[in-house]
Amino acid sequence: MRGAVLYAPYEVRFAEREAPAVVEPTDAIIRTSAVCVCGSDLWPYRGIEPITGPTPMGHEYCGIVEEVGSAVKNIKPGQFVVGSFLASDNTCAICRAGYQSRCVRGQSIGALGAQAPLLRVPLADGTLVATPDLPSDDLIPSLLAASDVLGTGWFAAAAAAVGPGKTVVVVGDGAVGLLGVLSAKQMGAERIIAMSRHEARQRLAHEFGATDIVTERGDAGVARVKDLTDGLGAHSVIEAVGTQESMMQAIRSTRPGGHVGFVGVTYGVALPGLELFFAEVHLLGGPAPVRRYLPELIDLIWNRTINPGKVFDLTLPLDQVAEGYRAMDERRAIKTLLLPDLT
Amino acid sequence: MRGAVLYAPYEVRFAEREAPAVVEPTDAIIRTSAVCVCGSDLWPYRGIEPITGPTPMGHEYCGIVEEVGSAVKNIKPGQFVVGSFLASDNTCAICRAGYQSRCVRGQSIGALGAQAPLLRVPLADGTLVATPDLPSDDLIPSLLAASDVLGTGWFAAAAAAVGPGKTVVVVGDGAVGLLGVLSAKQMGAERIIAMSRHEARQRLAHEFGATDIVTERGDAGVARVKDLTDGLGAHSVIEAVGTQESMMQAIRSTRPGGHVGFVGVTYGVALPGLELFFAEVHLLGGPAPVRRYLPELIDLIWNRTINPGKVFDLTLPLDQVAEGYRAMDERRAIKTLLLPDLT
Repeated sequence: MRGAVLYAPYEVRFAEREAPAVVEPTDAIIRTSAVCVCGSDLWPYRGIEPITGPTPMGHEYCGIVEEVGSAVKNIKPGQFVVGSFLASDNTCAICRAGYQSRCVRGQSIGALGAQAPLLRVPLADGTLVATPDLPSDDLIPSLLAASDVLGTGWFAAAAAAVGPGKTVVVVGDGAVGLLGVLSAKQMGAERIIAMSRHEARQRLAHEFGATDIVTERGDAGVARVKDLTDGLGAHSVIEAVGTQESMMQAIRSTRPGGHVGFVGVTYGVALPGLELFFAEVHLLGGPAPVRRYLPELIDLIWNRTINPGKVFDLTLPLDQVAEGYRAMDERRAIKTLLLPDLT
Repeated sequence: MRGAVLYAPYEVRFAEREAPAVVEPTDAIIRTSAVCVCGSDLWPYRGIEPITGPTPMGHEYCGIVEEVGSAVKNIKPGQFVVGSFLASDNTCAICRAGYQSRCVRGQSIGALGAQAPLLRVPLADGTLVATPDLPSDDLIPSLLAASDVLGTGWFAAAAAAVGPGKTVVVVGDGAVGLLGVLSAKQMGAERIIAMSRHEARQRLAHEFGATDIVTERGDAGVARVKDLTDGLGAHSVIEAVGTQESMMQAIRSTRPGGHVGFVGVTYGVALPGLELFFAEVHLLGGPAPVRRYLPELIDLIWNRTINPGKVFDLTLPLDQVAEGYRAMDERRAIKTLLLPDLT
């Protein structure tokens, strides 16, 4: 089998890898229908997150079950399934509380390399959710989005306590931020202020439900949000970048008692305690417990209520994965969809 | 009139001050029945928070209304009242959302110096809550506690989402931490782990409802909490210290998806973003919106359901305020009650 392997910064190749097989009795093997490149894949790609050797890449996936281990009870060969980027048993106390991203037996899909035609998914019964039937091709990008970016944007909106009547700010116009806009709209937000200075992304934000666009950043961006909210700040702020500036912009854009949901990985960020104290905002972030939301998200996609697949603005055969990374790194693409079948 | 004035670090005197008068039509003047020294008063006392000149001290109070301004409608002379350490109009959007500590017209009582026989309270209708009748003397310490330490411990417990069946950790065995224990018990917590190495405070913690005492601190304290919680950490953690070590101890003692309520003023604290991301805990802290809870707390005290006044282990006439500060600074007293009448 061939799949995406990162050899060194900026060097992703479609290379020979061992085909996965059932290792644990709780595993499933999936033939991927579509996979994609995540903003977080760019961290090792750019050399910011170091790698120790050739590294299989990718953690977003959907596809058809080929084989299951002897202990798998609910997932069956032939089903079309979507799973989170983190495997979880969905039965431990942390999973039952809705934090499957921190399952006590959790495993990273990223380490297994989903950008490939076949993928081993651990804890299959806990991790995977089957669709009602085999989906039509046009639904596949949206189902794939549920695996990470949609689930992450949705968690950010939930963590930010978005709801009817609320004013929501979204910091970050990548795929997660844009799907944070979609999630906020779906959760009934009254006003959604997207912070973006890229025209194509502004357009998609509008299409997903943004009512206002703010192009300013940092303190100027905060001031603009205050102008739009009677000087108070937003009820709910989604942070989907993960830098010091974006985190502070998010916190400062939130009214006292409001909520910040942050899902950008906060490398190198330090939050000043005293400012956080006097800001008096709720803060919740981390790797999204996508599994919690998968049944609901699959349902919304299946009924064509939402179309998160629109964030994919570049589709390539999987063997052109290197170009997929380049396009995202250079911000020529919001998000790259990779099709193993076309390879 | 004479009241407490801080002249320089460690130099509090019972000194002549101008008697307060109605300035704004929304003001009330109160004759204080009891006042006290707060842990946060020790910051300027110790010179950690600089002062620019002689500074009236104190922000916790209860007493009888002497006079009200022309715009005060609900508060009447002769009523016994309790107010928060922050004045609030209780009508702005932030107050209505329950964050009166960040009222858009908020004012600090501390700047007015409550450690005195008379106190001007701004925004009297929004700030003050009257008791059903004049209280008996034995209720006064508890009613005074509602003004700050009880309200703050209660907010911390609410911010930490304490509730029935939950395991709660309390970091900090000062008056606020101890009343965090009382609050958690009152909110139905199943297990309350108090972190303390002082015997008298451990005893009071037990009396207020603590089920376990942990004497270890830092990483050892976190390990002990994990031992007591199946390796997961607590559902709810109350942080009532405000140092780097105590904040990290609180965050690390919380299970994924759990809640940290922090009310220790976080001078010089910096929260590492990446650790916070992967901890995946809810964080809410700041100056407690005591006003939100006052009606309920007064009711619980009035009915003798709770006795938070037990945190006062030293009672002095107000003119001995200097000794009151010294005793707390040297940790000879948990909290000092000051009686203007005895002066």
